[in-house]
Amino acid sequence: MLPLITLTTDFGVSSPYVAALKGSLLSVCSEVQLVDLTQAIAPQNVRQAAVVLADVTPFFPAGTLHVVVVDPGVGTERKIIYAEIGEQKYLAPDNGVLSYIAQRTPPRKQIELADRRFWRESVSNTFHGRDVFAPVAGHLAAGVVPELLGPELHQLFRLHWPEPQISEADIRGEVLYFDSFGNVITNIPLAEVQRIAPPATTVVAVAGRTIEGLHATYGKSQLGALIALGDSQGRLEVAIVNGNAARELNVQPGEPVHVYRQRGQRIPTPEIS
Amino acid sequence: MLPLITLTTDFGVSSPYVAALKGSLLSVCSEVQLVDLTQAIAPQNVRQAAVVLADVTPFFPAGTLHVVVVDPGVGTERKIIYAEIGEQKYLAPDNGVLSYIAQRTPPRKQIELADRRFWRESVSNTFHGRDVFAPVAGHLAAGVVPELLGPELHQLFRLHWPEPQISEADIRGEVLYFDSFGNVITNIPLAEVQRIAPPATTVVAVAGRTIEGLHATYGKSQLGALIALGDSQGRLEVAIVNGNAARELNVQPGEPVHVYRQRGQRIPTPEIS
Amino acid sequence: MLPLITLTTDFGVSSPYVAALKGSLLSVCSEVQLVDLTQAIAPQNVRQAAVVLADVTPFFPAGTLHVVVVDPGVGTERKIIYAEIGEQKYLAPDNGVLSYIAQRTPPRKQIELADRRFWRESVSNTFHGRDVFAPVAGHLAAGVVPELLGPELHQLFRLHWPEPQISEADIRGEVLYFDSFGNVITNIPLAEVQRIAPPATTVVAVAGRTIEGLHATYGKSQLGALIALGDSQGRLEVAIVNGNAARELNVQPGEPVHVYRQRGQRIPTPEIS
Repeated sequence: MLPLITLTTDFGVSSPYVAALKGSLLSVCSEVQLVDLTQAIAPQNVRQAAVVLADVTPFFPAGTLHVVVVDPGVGTERKIIYAEIGEQKYLAPDNGVLSYIAQRTPPRKQIELADRRFWRESVSNTFHGRDVFAPVAGHLAAGVVPELLGPELHQLFRLHWPEPQISEADIRGEVLYFDSFGNVITNIPLAEVQRIAPPATTVVAVAGRTIEGLHATYGKSQLGALIALGDSQGRLEVAIVNGNAARELNVQPGEPVHVYRQRGQRIPTPEIS
Repeated sequence: MLPLITLTTDFGVSSPYVAALKGSLLSVCSEVQLVDLTQAIAPQNVRQAAVVLADVTPFFPAGTLHVVVVDPGVGTERKIIYAEIGEQKYLAPDNGVLSYIAQRTPPRKQIELADRRFWRESVSNTFHGRDVFAPVAGHLAAGVVPELLGPELHQLFRLHWPEPQISEADIRGEVLYFDSFGNVITNIPLAEVQRIAPPATTVVAVAGRTIEGLHATYGKSQLGALIALGDSQGRLEVAIVNGNAARELNVQPGEPVHVYRQRGQRIPTPEIS
Repeated sequence: MLPLITLTTDFGVSSPYVAALKGSLLSVCSEVQLVDLTQAIAPQNVRQAAVVLADVTPFFPAGTLHVVVVDPGVGTERKIIYAEIGEQKYLAPDNGVLSYIAQRTPPRKQIELADRRFWRESVSNTFHGRDVFAPVAGHLAAGVVPELLGPELHQLFRLHWPEPQISEADIRGEVLYFDSFGNVITNIPLAEVQRIAPPATTVVAVAGRTIEGLHATYGKSQLGALIALGDSQGRLEVAIVNGNAARELNVQPGEPVHVYRQRGQRIPTPEIS
């Protein structure tokens, strides 16, 4: 089995720079299997990359190396790190991009890249993806022991990740991000929503709109309906059936989301499966 | 030789969900070669996906498995099917996405996915691509016999695909779709166009415009010229040389296209090769 | 090690035609490793493709085959060529797309594709990528000797590539292209800029703006600052920190760029690393 390596960048799907990075990696070790995780992180959006990595990397085989080049601080003193978190391995700038994963699962190993023997001979100031990350990934694929890359690091750089406020009666969370369909993902665990109220009496308030009832999936509602449901990661999601909820609601990450139980008159037609 | 698997989705080229699907597949069987067929089917556009699959999959080696996740009915009672059509294999929702291919070539085998042993242990309601299609594809790559996946299915769900009306004197068809260059592809076979008239006296009428003469390729006409020619699948195509015909003509799939023979005065300068 | 093949096209990242090309190639030889160089060359933009190939292909392992389908003349008398330049191999239309690379490094071998045994049996007029380039690439991967493809070619088609005017006192060059971040790349070698003046007294004039000082990287300047620095290829670049310089300056390829040394009063706060 070939070593598996994924790439996550903010270069854009149109950029040939991703291929330069791949060429540089393959020049060190061509016996690898490369998978694009995504090249479409919004430019310099470290928080978006952090959530995407947490959502996607656990689905890869144990031991997969995830190379993350979302790196607005390239060429400054920010560190580049190798980390092992859960069953996955990461190569990333130490700018908080791994802190959303690390908040849930403490890293087992974290090393600062320091030994330039594993970098390209000539390192540019603006493209460490090609000149540092890629050759180091190649050397790891070729069997280099991570401890050779540099000294152990005791503390990762952390970003603040807000947790929802959960009471007996309601939950106050926020919009985490939205996906390419415009589905709005919140930081509220679906299990907590289900604890607050039965599906038929759940109310989700966001951006001045009130959504009644919790659905199981998209396909059972009318086209264009604004619905609340669980996302594929076990979080509360707000969606428009065959439409774009993020655009229609005009929400941004951080927008408050309030979940509570419908009081008084029962909703007559909850369409729950 | 590694088993070859392609992926067709409406997730969008920017979506990290495609990688979650790949990770889930590789976790079952990493000894595969993955090829993106396209991730850019318009959201929930089953008809577009059907035409793209018919145009592209026959060019793959015999035995390639094409995984198709254009699935607006995810989580409802729609079936997921495994089918063998011609020399290709397909894993797709039973929503008509295979019916354009199956209209030409009757499937040799069609099976409904039912045995949950080959799915992820925990199946979400909204992401069967990751939780059902991907692991089943992995098990097929690892050698699982299709018959183990579930019972034989006797009838695929069919969409209606209009056929052109062909007479001795003319052909009435319609716009099938347009490609990323804005070239307008019709459902009219080029061979029938050539039967109606010699290239110099062919007339194509679409969207209020009349195009005289049938060309062999783009490069022999003036930049900006509106021309009719054969597409790479043997169908009649309308194009603007180095321009975007779909935008200029403002056509949608279903727009009528009329082909007939120029009468009377001969066109003096048909630029035919 | 599997033969490594990259693909560069103007089909667009959303196009399924790239997959048709890959399928056609894999049908001839499936024992290859395919890498997308980019599918996002602007339609018919041979000059952009030429610069991208020069920037990216040298980072690939020696012997990699780069298939280039940016081919507005498809189906006309333009030739298709196989060339070896430096340590890389190319399959491309003879329309100047290799001339930017060849201007720096004379090709060691150039062959015109002529022997139709290595093409698809049925060749369309509009999709030589699938019907000629792809199967020829497959045959090369399978070990076919390039000399079998056709006769030696004595002269590649050349485009004109402007060189900057370099004097003792200043440099007059132009904008070469801009990348997906909007960073503006010029045809001016960074080494010449550094010869003209020390970083603190360098002046770059472009599009009516004057930029004082030469920076080492992005991360040390204020967000939104317009700066000059070296790009990852050793050329002068103009950028806006975390912004889009191409859009803000409203420049196109060919826009004049003037570099000279600040006279008189010294700039008090050059932020140079």
